This record gives sequence, C-alpha cells and structure tokens, in this order.
Amino acid sequence: MSYFPDVPKIKYEGPSSKNPLAFKHYNPDEVVEGKTMREHMRFGAAYWHCMRGGLSDPFGGPTAQMPWDDMSDCIDNAKKRADVFFEFLEKIDIDYYCFHDRDIAPELNDLAKSTAALEAVVDHLGGLQKSSGRKLLWGTACLFSHPRYSQGAGTSPDARVFAYGAAQIKAAMDATHKLGGEGYTFWGGREGYATLLNTDMKRELDHLAALLHMAVEYKKAIGYTGQFYIEPKPREPSTHQYDSDSAACLNFLREYGLMDHFKLNIETNHATLAGHTMQHELAVAIGSNALGSIDANQGDTLLGWDTDQFPSDLYGTTQVMLKVLEMGGFTTGGLNFDAKRRRESHEPIDLFHAHIGGMDAFARGLKSAAAIRADGRIDEFVKNRYSTWDSGIGAVIEGGTDLKTLSDWALKNGEPVVASGRQELLENILNEFI
Amino acid sequence: MSYFPDVPKIKYEGPSSKNPLAFKHYNPDEVVEGKTMREHMRFGAAYWHCMRGGLSDPFGGPTAQMPWDDMSDCIDNAKKRADVFFEFLEKIDIDYYCFHDRDIAPELNDLAKSTAALEAVVDHLGGLQKSSGRKLLWGTACLFSHPRYSQGAGTSPDARVFAYGAAQIKAAMDATHKLGGEGYTFWGGREGYATLLNTDMKRELDHLAALLHMAVEYKKAIGYTGQFYIEPKPREPSTHQYDSDSAACLNFLREYGLMDHFKLNIETNHATLAGHTMQHELAVAIGSNALGSIDANQGDTLLGWDTDQFPSDLYGTTQVMLKVLEMGGFTTGGLNFDAKRRRESHEPIDLFHAHIGGMDAFARGLKSAAAIRADGRIDEFVKNRYSTWDSGIGAVIEGGTDLKTLSDWALKNGEPVVASGRQELLENILNEFI
Amino acid sequence: MSYFPDVPKIKYEGPSSKNPLAFKHYNPDEVVEGKTMREHMRFGAAYWHCMRGGLSDPFGGPTAQMPWDDMSDCIDNAKKRADVFFEFLEKIDIDYYCFHDRDIAPELNDLAKSTAALEAVVDHLGGLQKSSGRKLLWGTACLFSHPRYSQGAGTSPDARVFAYGAAQIKAAMDATHKLGGEGYTFWGGREGYATLLNTDMKRELDHLAALLHMAVEYKKAIGYTGQFYIEPKPREPSTHQYDSDSAACLNFLREYGLMDHFKLNIETNHATLAGHTMQHELAVAIGSNALGSIDANQGDTLLGWDTDQFPSDLYGTTQVMLKVLEMGGFTTGGLNFDAKRRRESHEPIDLFHAHIGGMDAFARGLKSAAAIRADGRIDEFVKNRYSTWDSGIGAVIEGGTDLKTLSDWALKNGEPVVASGRQELLENILNEFI
Amino acid sequence: MSYFPDVPKIKYEGPSSKNPLAFKHYNPDEVVEGKTMREHMRFGAAYWHCMRGGLSDPFGGPTAQMPWDDMSDCIDNAKKRADVFFEFLEKIDIDYYCFHDRDIAPELNDLAKSTAALEAVVDHLGGLQKSSGRKLLWGTACLFSHPRYSQGAGTSPDARVFAYGAAQIKAAMDATHKLGGEGYTFWGGREGYATLLNTDMKRELDHLAALLHMAVEYKKAIGYTGQFYIEPKPREPSTHQYDSDSAACLNFLREYGLMDHFKLNIETNHATLAGHTMQHELAVAIGSNALGSIDANQGDTLLGWDTDQFPSDLYGTTQVMLKVLEMGGFTTGGLNFDAKRRRESHEPIDLFHAHIGGMDAFARGLKSAAAIRADGRIDEFVKNRYSTWDSGIGAVIEGGTDLKTLSDWALKNGEPVVASGRQELLENILNEFI
Ligand SMILES: [Co+2]
Ligand SMILES: [Co+2]
Ligand SMILES: [Co+2]
Ligand SMILES: [Co+2]
Ligand SMILES: [Co+2]
Ligand SMILES: [Co+2]
Ligand SMILES: [Co+2]
Ligand SMILES: [Co+2]
Repeated sequence: MSYFPDVPKIKYEGPSSKNPLAFKHYNPDEVVEGKTMREHMRFGAAYWHCMRGGLSDPFGGPTAQMPWDDMSDCIDNAKKRADVFFEFLEKIDIDYYCFHDRDIAPELNDLAKSTAALEAVVDHLGGLQKSSGRKLLWGTACLFSHPRYSQGAGTSPDARVFAYGAAQIKAAMDATHKLGGEGYTFWGGREGYATLLNTDMKRELDHLAALLHMAVEYKKAIGYTGQFYIEPKPREPSTHQYDSDSAACLNFLREYGLMDHFKLNIETNHATLAGHTMQHELAVAIGSNALGSIDANQGDTLLGWDTDQFPSDLYGTTQVMLKVLEMGGFTTGGLNFDAKRRRESHEPIDLFHAHIGGMDAFARGLKSAAAIRADGRIDEFVKNRYSTWDSGIGAVIEGGTDLKTLSDWALKNGEPVVASGRQELLENILNEFI
Repeated sequence: MSYFPDVPKIKYEGPSSKNPLAFKHYNPDEVVEGKTMREHMRFGAAYWHCMRGGLSDPFGGPTAQMPWDDMSDCIDNAKKRADVFFEFLEKIDIDYYCFHDRDIAPELNDLAKSTAALEAVVDHLGGLQKSSGRKLLWGTACLFSHPRYSQGAGTSPDARVFAYGAAQIKAAMDATHKLGGEGYTFWGGREGYATLLNTDMKRELDHLAALLHMAVEYKKAIGYTGQFYIEPKPREPSTHQYDSDSAACLNFLREYGLMDHFKLNIETNHATLAGHTMQHELAVAIGSNALGSIDANQGDTLLGWDTDQFPSDLYGTTQVMLKVLEMGGFTTGGLNFDAKRRRESHEPIDLFHAHIGGMDAFARGLKSAAAIRADGRIDEFVKNRYSTWDSGIGAVIEGGTDLKTLSDWALKNGEPVVASGRQELLENILNEFI
Repeated sequence: MSYFPDVPKIKYEGPSSKNPLAFKHYNPDEVVEGKTMREHMRFGAAYWHCMRGGLSDPFGGPTAQMPWDDMSDCIDNAKKRADVFFEFLEKIDIDYYCFHDRDIAPELNDLAKSTAALEAVVDHLGGLQKSSGRKLLWGTACLFSHPRYSQGAGTSPDARVFAYGAAQIKAAMDATHKLGGEGYTFWGGREGYATLLNTDMKRELDHLAALLHMAVEYKKAIGYTGQFYIEPKPREPSTHQYDSDSAACLNFLREYGLMDHFKLNIETNHATLAGHTMQHELAVAIGSNALGSIDANQGDTLLGWDTDQFPSDLYGTTQVMLKVLEMGGFTTGGLNFDAKRRRESHEPIDLFHAHIGGMDAFARGLKSAAAIRADGRIDEFVKNRYSTWDSGIGAVIEGGTDLKTLSDWALKNGEPVVASGRQELLENILNEFI
Repeated sequence: MSYFPDVPKIKYEGPSSKNPLAFKHYNPDEVVEGKTMREHMRFGAAYWHCMRGGLSDPFGGPTAQMPWDDMSDCIDNAKKRADVFFEFLEKIDIDYYCFHDRDIAPELNDLAKSTAALEAVVDHLGGLQKSSGRKLLWGTACLFSHPRYSQGAGTSPDARVFAYGAAQIKAAMDATHKLGGEGYTFWGGREGYATLLNTDMKRELDHLAALLHMAVEYKKAIGYTGQFYIEPKPREPSTHQYDSDSAACLNFLREYGLMDHFKLNIETNHATLAGHTMQHELAVAIGSNALGSIDANQGDTLLGWDTDQFPSDLYGTTQVMLKVLEMGGFTTGGLNFDAKRRRESHEPIDLFHAHIGGMDAFARGLKSAAAIRADGRIDEFVKNRYSTWDSGIGAVIEGGTDLKTLSDWALKNGEPVVASGRQELLENILNEFI
C-alpha cells in the first residue's frame, strides 16, 4: 500500500517545467566537475522533521497531518512510520537519512525497554535499507528532550543523568553501527547552562570531554569506523550552549585532545544565529580540516531562533557548494535537510514541495559554483590580491623572519599602497552566476 | 598651571554624599578580602578616549571641548596633551593608563619620523610617570586607523603593509618596555575581512600567527617581561573579525602554539556584541588560565555596535568582581576604562563624572562580590548541586570508566531525578547584595 | 486541604531577613507617595503560567511538577486547578489574576461544549473570588494555540476561522464581565503572517479592525465597562506580528478610529524584542494617554525570543515605577506577572521563589522611584535642560510662528551653544537610588 | 576636461557581456509592462556618498581617492565637485540626484555665509542640470552632522538650535524649489534621544510636529509643489530615533494631523535594522497610500548598524519591484542609491562598479517582478486563499455584522479546516524567476 498515493516518484523535468512535483534543476545523473549530482550532494532526509515533527511551536500545538500515525508509543507504530519514511525517500529520490534514537523508536520510561524497542526498530530499518538501497548518513542519541536532561546530559550536575546519557549513546552507536551509518553526530542540545549562578563550567566541560573520550574508546571496541561529528549551535535551547560555533567546538576539541576523532557537522541556521555567515563557519572548519557534514537549511536573520527553514536562497546554496567543491567534496558527510515546513504547511504534500525546493536550490548552487570556478575571474582576483606574498618581502616573511628585519625594511621602503578590494565588482561577477 | 582649574582631587566622601565630584563607594585604602580597593582594582584610564576622543560618530563630527589641544600634529602638542592627561590621572586618582602609539604621538606619514616622535613623547611620559607615580598598564600599536591598514595589518593581502605593521609593533613594544608597561595588547581591529569573496582566510591566519610568534621572539630579545594580551572583538570594524570572542582567540592560540605566551584582555561590550555575557567570557578565559586583564565598560544590548559606555550597571560590576576574586585577583592586568562619554557630554567635567561613576560602580561591585562570598549561600548551593559527582557513580566517572560500564549501571539504577536548578531563588539572593 | 502544605502565607520580614519564603521589600500596607504598596502595585498572577505552564520548550517536553493535575480535559480537573491557584494567590498575597478562556477551561473540540465548560468554570471562579477577595485584572481569549488559528484569527485568510474566533471572544468577554474583570486584553498571537508571499496585509488588517469594532459594540450591548487593552509583541509566534510595538498599535488604532476604546498592555520582554527599552514603550503610550496595564517580566537581550523571565533587575523595576508614578498610577490596570520559571525550576516551591522575587523587585523599584522623585535632582535637570523653551524664541515657537521668522532670528543670533547632556552624571545619580 | 578619463559612457551590452563597465540587464529603453526601464526606475545618485563620502568609519579615517577635491571649504571647490558629479551622472546614465545642503556647499560657521554659499552652488547646479538634462529627485537639509545638532534639531532641548535648523530647512527648501526638485525629504538623524533620563519626549515631539507644520506652510507660501517625505530609521545615530520605522512615522503623522502632507522615503537597510523586511515596510506604507520614494541599498543583517551597501541581492530587488509595480509605479519618487562602497573599494572606478551592480540588480528585479505578475500563479494563489471572504459568512463580515451573529453562526457550522499556507511551494515558484 502507499501512504502518498497521489504523489509520483519525483523526476527531473528541466527548468521550463511548471510541474510542482518535478525537479527543475536536480538531475541526479548529470555530471558536474567529474561527478554526478547524486554523488556530490549525498542528500539526507531528517527522520525527526519528516516523521516526528508535528509543527508545534511555543504558542501552539501540532498541525501536521500524519494519517498513518496512531500517536501511540508502540513498536508497531514506529515500524509503520519507518515504512512511510522509506516510501517518502524513494519518491523524493533522497539516498540518505539521519535519525535520533528516540525518533525512530519510543522512549518507554525504562531504559531496558527503550533499548529493546530501539533494537527492534533498527532491525526493521535494516530491512528497509536493504530493500530500498537507502543508506544511513548518521545516527545520534536524543539527549535533550526528556526532562531528565533538562540540566544537561554530558554536562548534567547529576552524575546519574550522565550515566543514563552514556547508556543511550552506547545503544545509539550500536544502532548506527548495525545500520552501516557513515557517521555519528553529537549535538549537545542541553550541554550549556541556564544561568552561570548555579554552574561550574569547568567541571561540566571536563565531564563532556570524558564522555567523548569514552565514545572514541567504544568506537574502537566495537570496530565502528564511521566519522564522529560535533554540531555547533548557539543560544538555544539552553541560555548558552557550550558548542556555540565552529571556533568554540574546535577550541574544546583541541583543549581536550580530541581533534583527531571529530569533525564538524555545520548547520546554516546555527551559523547565522551565532553571528556568522555559513561560509565563515565552513571556512573555519575547512581551515582545520574539520568539515565533516552539513545540515542544509536556512534561517530568518530577522528572527532570533532556529527556524530551520528549507534552503531556498540561491546565494546560500551557491556559497555552500563553492566551499564543498573547494574541499574536494564530501567523504562520509552529505547535505542533510535538517529543515521543517512552516507550521501552516501542514499537509503531507508540503513535505514534497519543501524537499523539492531544497534539492533544486542546491542543484542550482552546485551548477553556479562550478560555473564560477570554470570562469575563474574570482579565483584569479584572489590569487593576485595576495601576490606580494609570493616573492620579495612577502616570501621573506612566509619563510620566517623577525620584527627587526621587517622594521628595517619598512623604514627603507616608504608608504605601501594597498589595492582596492573590489567587493562591488566581485559581487557583480557573482550575480552573473545566480 | 592647571587644565582643570575648577576640579579638586576627587576624594571618598561616603554613600550619603551628594557631591558629584566625590567618590561615594571607591575608598582606595579600604580593605576588602585582605587587600585595599586600590590593589584590587588597578584602575586604568585610556589615553585614546580621554585625550584623543573627539566624540564624533558616523553621522557627525567631534563635539568634545579640548581647549588645551591646538589640533596640530606636532610633538609639543602631544606633550601638552600628556601633561593634561597626568593632571587628570592625579585628580581622578587612577593609578594606571593604557595607550596606542598613535594616541600619544603623531603619525607623520613617514615611518622614521613617526617613530622618532613616538620616542620623544615616550621620554616625556617617562618623566610624568616618575613625578606622579602613575604606571603603564599596557601599551599597544594602532594598526587599524590609517588607510594602509584598511584591509588588515597582520592579515593584510599586501606583504608590505604587514612589514609596516611589524615595524610599528616593534616600536610600540620598545616604548612599552621603556615605560615599564606591565602588559602589551594586541587588538586586531582590521584583522578580519570585508567579504569572503576576496579573502584567503587560511593564508591570512598563518600570517597573523607568524606576526605574533615574531613578537614573542622580540620580547625575549629585548628582555621585556610584561604580559601579552589578545583582545577579542566581533563584527566591528571589519565585517568579521578573526578574534571574535574568547573561544575564537583560544582556538587560534592553541592551533598555532601560542597559548603559553598570551592571555586575554576581555571587554564587556565586546562580549555582549559576540552574544555572550561578560561572565561567560571571563569564565571561558579563567577555565584556560587565560584571563589577563579587563577593558571595563558596558554596551547597549539593543544597539548593534560597540558603544563603549562607562560601566554603571551594578549587576555587571558585581559579576565581574566575583570572577576577579574567584581567580585570585589581577597579576599584571587591571580594570582599564575603555569607555567614552556620550557625544552629548562634551565638556571636560564630563570626563570626571564618567570615571567617578565607573569607579564607584566597580567599588560597589567589589563590596557586593565580597559580601556574596562571605555569605556563602550561592557557593554552597553550587557545591551541593554537583554532589553526586563526589562519590558513587560520579566518582567512578571522574576516575575514568567506559560506556559499557555506565550502560550497565544505568540499566540497574532506574530513572534519575534531577533537582531544581533554583535560578529564581539564586537571583533573589543575588538581589540581596545589589 | 492544602496543595502547598509546606508553604506558609508569605509575609514581610524586612531587608535583613534570610528567609527565602518572606518578602524583604514588599510590605503591602507601607505607604509610598500617599498610597499603600498594595494599591500602587495591583499585582496580578497569570493563570496560564502558574497552572498550565508545563515548562516545555521547542526541544523538550514539560518538566513542571503539578501533582494536583490529572492532565485530563474534564471540568472537575479544571475546577481543581482553580482551587490550587487560589490557594497560591492567598499564600503569595497577590490580589489579582488574569486568564485566557482555554487556560481555565478545556477546549473540547466542539464550540458549544467548550463554551459550556467555560461557563461552568467561571461559576466556580466566581465563588473562589468571593470567598478569597481576589479579583480579576483582565480576561482574554486564546486565539493562537489551536491549529485552526495557525494562520490567524481576526486576520485569518479563512472567514470561518474569523467567525469561530469572534465566538470565542464573545464568550470570553461574557466570562470577564461576569467575573467583574477590570479589563479585557487582545493579544494577536497569530495576527501577522508567516510570509508576505501568500498574504494580503491590507485585507487582513481591515478584518482585524472590524473584529475590534464588533467587540466595542458588544461591550456596550452587554454593559461591560472594563477597559480594553491591546498587547504589542513583535516577531513571535508569527514571522511578523501586526501589533509589533506601541507605535504600530497606536498607528493601527488611529487609522481605524479605535483610539477612544483601547489602551495598551505593555510587556517588558516584548518591548526589548522590538528593539525598545521598556521605558520607551511606556513613554510612547503615556504620551498618547494610552498606557493601560503592564505585563511585568523581563527578557534576555542576548536571546532572540520571549523568555518571559520573572522581573529581578532593579533598574528595570525602578524605571517602570517611575513611569507609573509619573502617570499618576494605575486605574484599571496593574502589574501582571506574565512570567514563567525557567524549565529547570520545576518544583511547586519555585513558583513562590519566582513571585516573591518579582514582588520584592517591584517594591524596591517603587521605593527607589519615589526616592528619586523626592530627591528632585533628575527632574530639575530635565526642567532646566528645556528652559530656553519657556521664554524668548522658545516661547515664540511654542506659541506658533513660521520658517521665515525663525530664519531671520537665526541669522541675527549667531551660533547657539548647546549644554552638555550630562548622561553620565545622571546615571551616577540614578545609581544612588539602586 | 574629464575627471574619469578612462571610463566610457556605460552602455547596455546584454547578459553575456563580460565587460565590467557595461550594463548586463539595465537597458534604459527596454519596455516592461508598458513603460521603459528608465521610466520605471527613476534612478537617483546620492551626492553625499558619491562626492563627500570619504569612506571613513569609527575606527579609521577616509580612504577614498578624490583627486579633484582640494578638501577646502571654498565655493570653487564645491562647484568643481558638482562638475565631477555631473560627469559621473552622465557616464553612469543616472537621471536624478539627491543632496543635503551641506553636501553641495560648505558649512561656513556663519549662517548667512553658509546660505550665500548654498545659493551660489545652487546656481551652478542649475546650469549643470540644464546642460545635462539631469534632474533633482529630492533635496534635504543636513541637521545631524554639526555639533549644534548633537542633541537634536527639531527636537533639540535648546530652542535656539531649533530656530537655526528651521533656517536651514527654509534655505534647503528654497534651493530644492529653485532646482525643480520633485520632492523634499526629512530624515531626523538626531531627532531622538541618547537617554530617557534627560529627555521630555512629549515636548520634543510637539516641537518636531510644529516644525513640520511650518514647513508645510512655507511650501504653500513659496508655491513649491514637490512631495514631502519622511525617512524612517531606527537606532542610529541616536540611541533611539523617533522616526524608527514606517509605523512610528505614520503614527506620528496621524497624531499631529500631517498625513495629507507627507509620504515616506523607505530605505532597505533601515527596514532591516528595525527588524522588518523591506517588503513589510513597503506594504505598510502602501496600505496607507504613503509610499513616496525608496532609498535603494542593502544591509548586512548580521551587523547591527547601517552599512548602506549597494543593492545586489536579487531577491531584494525583485520584491521591491513587485511592490512598486503593485502600487502603479513611482510618481514623484524613484530609486535613490543611498549606498556607499566598502571602505576597501577606494578608487573612483569602484563608484562605477557599485552603481552598475545596483542598476543591473534592479533591472533584473524589474524583469523578474514583471514575469511573476505575468505568470500569475502567486497572485492566483493569494486570491484563492482569501476566497471564503468573497461570499457566505465572509461577505457577511465584510458587510458589517456583530459578535452575537458570528457566535451563532460558528456554533452551527462546526470546526473550520484551514488550507495549507504552501509557503515552500510559493518559494519554489519565486525561485523560478530569480
Ligand atoms: Co542540525
Ligand atoms: Co537547527
Ligand atoms: Co577594548
Ligand atoms: Co569596545
Ligand atoms: Co504578555
Ligand atoms: Co511575553
Ligand atoms: Co537613506
Ligand atoms: Co542608511
């Protein structure tokens, strides 16, 4: 049976199509810079938003129509949701998915029962993966929704909560390993504080690092070879999150000797909430060889919370794909749509409109990025802008020198005249490709 | 002669005084937690704001009345300003000051001449320090005002600009050394970018690190033993500053092997512009033993730029002093008023009102912080909040364990019940001391 | 029976008390500027936060312990909650309360049944008011939580939803009238838009105005004489709320001929979310004789959503009370604690800590405001600052003149010299009273 | 002689041109919806940014190269600048310009002399207009830069400053009238406050209204028939501007009986600083028949001040042009580039790159907007979304009814089911046209 009986498999029909249920730009087998779009994108769908997101907000209850879901916490309902999800994946032609343990299986208020439920659903998902050819981009444990985690998991003031969280991570890692997940993500939704008045920040961070070191050890112990990611996010839901942006994460990883074991999973809306552009966050991560995967969405910079909108801004997708191409493409990571429909878009068909829009926006971003690279004017400008570093005093500095030498040089060589940065010209060139 | 003939030396008159030219709380010799207020505070005045700040803004020219200043770029005018400044320091009873090279001496569009002018004024300042007993908290080089630095100094795309900046740093370090400065600060006003479209972030950061390493070497070469500081600031004046907050600075220092040589100089308004409370930034720095000094001011969180207002909020000063007491007080650092009067407060007397207010606000902050510590209720609450970590499974975790052990423990021990965080109660207690 | 058996009636014990369950500043019968504190404050408790706020957030479920609540939607449970609430009101010594129709009685998915349930609970509340002497500050209808209102109520694109909302307003006005409510509030939680792409703003605003005019007529029809309020709020939960701040509300009221019938209910956290200080919003309202009531809370200006924290900042409460005293005190309005405990403060006792803190903070605010007024230095400064308007050319202008006359005057009278605004001095004086 | 000898007249070369000094989309004579692009756009250049903007910022001095300008305050230099500006207008093919009195002529610290200088330059500009065929979009008086206005002009606490400002307005109106300006703009750069502690908001607003009424009278007296505009802006340079957004301006105009005499000049960057999209501000103004003109630029929503960047975002220009077409085009207004190059773009040629980019971005916006309107899918969706208002209960409501009638209707008609808002689908359609 079908849960989306009126929705055909979404196909590429080209830019002139007016069919809302067709791709106008995402052509999976089209080759760009030597790889197919499918290989470049490695699109993922988020189980939580697609199957568990009721579209409630702080001022109102759920609106999403999910006729297949009886809202019970039983395993059969969980399996049925998985069936619906895989029909969605096939029809939307998305190859990967991501989940939290508590999205795919119920929290049953008894750890052993919850874990058994998770295992049962994981078996069911394994079957669905096999029959559909879909794959797991990454798994994770939800350590932020349950009241026990209201004051943190790895950074809880209560050691018993920490232990409970460690148990959930172990089971979620087992599940991810079993399903062949290419990565495993840590998002510290409650790893922060509500007020510094009651917080011992240093002790909390020591605990968080200990937890991550245990995860690294457990990974080795079970032979899991997927990539670990940390996902930065500022300001929400705690008053201050520890992993607030890429720099904060990298600083933490360096301080605690974890740089070799983690990369970052960077989300656009989290970047802008932290006051950075997405390109900035990607550049910071790439600069430390730490860009792992991307949560593809967009925010509303006039609002102060994580709106997790579907990516539609072509400037944004172009700049993300420029960075992805620059680093040579994804290895274990991909473009996971950590995005939700607006609360008013409550029909199942809106799920399709939303993902089609996101996939087309990224396809245009990829084509624009490749065209910008082929054109070469921007790259050439940047190269020339730094040309004084390639010889003369610049080469001396890059080779190693001292203040006295430079002072002597400067005293002899007069006032340097810096060339225009030409931002407006470069923006004009960029617009040629949008 | 006197430049402030109508202003007496400012003295402590106690809380009931209505004299606007008296301290109501800053009583320099009063002992708090075993040290005098003077020893705790180590107040500094900022040469740039006091003597060179015309109070212009992007929409209007200078308003500040500075009858002593003929606005010329000659050395005599510079020396006269220094005389005025030291009269101000003595009358306001501030012990330290801070400067940029180009504040105290003119930029003469010829590096040799500018450097010679700097040396001449430094000699004059040395004499004033000696006769007045005032000391230099820190010096720095201004690598952000001149057009040559419009695209960066240590991160300029032009190697010649980098060399020029290196020369300025050398001279400013020499000046600071000569004047017995207890520290030297790096604020990368133009170390960032206007647009990523024209920027090679990685190459720029490599250059910045090289510059700092050269400064470390030069410090050894000349035998200067003061403390190096980096001052974080986000978003202004470049579109994105590299040293945007404490975490970004620490990450950079760790990446480039510079942690042993630098501490942070943290400014309240920069903290809030970066989306953090000042307490957060102080806690991050203290957690890495990297809090060096403080730029004491406050911002307007409803405005999006660095308003550099004088500190008057008693919550802010109390929380800063709690952190300062927690780390055992300043060593080389102090409370430097990196603050300016509002543009409308254009008379010389407003300089006194502003500093008196800031000093009294910090004196109350110190007394409140000491009283909170003596009271002990907040500290006790925090200690108890983490008590599950002191024995049992908490002690096991802190001693080192693994996920499997914790999972087994959690499966056996049922649902943990976390205690209330009591934020409102703690805020009520805090208010008892404001 | 008692639902808070361990909590005594909260009493005033004075500033030196260390009893967390006592007022240190709120002394109901203490006279300030000729009225008791109780008369000045007219404190209200919010039924929604106290009784229905589970403390969930977008990333986690409810944490609040409410042992009296069986979570059912039956009328008996609703009545029991009312009993608990009135015990709370009596113990905390708050005289007023505020409610939404759906807080006090269940939404039963059939309008007639929901309305009948509301009437039943209103009768019960009437009895509780009578026996306890507590009063209703204002009532309102919840037109934002149910999915039917996801796209607006008075501004819904669907006329049937508008009619449903009108029915709810009618019933809520009947309830408020019956309970002797001194006011009735309109907060347009969904009166705004998610995207302008699908919105006819002008038609929606015409509908909203029509709804308010119908409410004015209905008020006359039933003889209800309470005050109508509009509560401004920006940005949440819709992408853009129409009633975003005081100016937007006043503009709307003027445009549609509604100024005579509405005043504003201004909330501190909504003011700051809109980019204004609370004092600004109060001054704007007072300037148009439109300040009706206050939702007393505070926000976190580093976060971008309505955190609805309990008011504890003494600067904030002082400045609110200065404005309240300036306008001669409340008539129908009061200080309604539209505030919730942090999610981590999940025990019933935290309700008491939170309200005690808010009441004491406002009591200190009142005392400080009265002291500032008695001192007179700030008022005197302001009066003098405008003294050129009291005679000479200022009086000519205020009496009515023209550009030509002023131009002639200015050509003859040379460069005007404006006096210092003395902001720092005034901030110092303010601090004397904090 | 030529001041831009290497720059040819900029011409349309079509989208495939790679010539940075050509239009790729702005084709002045191309007809769109029945008018030429030139007629639609009515582009204006800003004298202040083009000729007087040194590109300084709060942390550094001017960088702009202006070899024609000897930086003196004499009238000859002012005339020479005007010659340069008109060469620029002709080469960039912009038809209109805008100025402040103090941009085009020097402030000479004596009102009579300043006014005489203004008159002399106005005569020169009149000649340039005649010979070039360029026209004045609007003029204005600069009442914000000089220290005398530091505390306001129309809202100064000092009546003498008000009179001085009135004299400047009179002379600027005379100048605008003489030059055939199609409008006159009031931007209250200092009409706001630094702190409410020293401010009598009500008295200040009364004065501001009096000033505007005098301007209305003077307009009649001299027979000037151009349009008056108010330009909203929040937060800068004062701490709070009175004319903070469209709603605040309209509220003020309504309160003081000025609605018939003023329209708004809305700037994109001011809209976003106030927390609104530009489309929102335009819709608010159009809804009150009060959209007069547009200051075309864009901001950086991650920065908190008015960056006044050149418009390049095609979403932004499309949405502006949709609104302009919706209102039937400009009458007296136009698209004035109130935009400045980045400080790093300091060469004269960057002025051309910047304006070319802005003009092309708006040309694409116009073409996209016209195509969206011709396509009709979005308009059709919106029309259908409100279809329940066109008959049945919706028509009853729009015709006038009461709460009782609606309540009865709702009780009979069951739960309304609202249709999906389809935001994602609409965003996908929009992207078809970008
Ligand atoms: Co994410
Ligand atoms: Co997110
Ligand atoms: Co500083
Ligand atoms: Co600063
Ligand atoms: Co409220
Ligand atoms: Co609120
Ligand atoms: Co403008
Ligand atoms: Co602007």
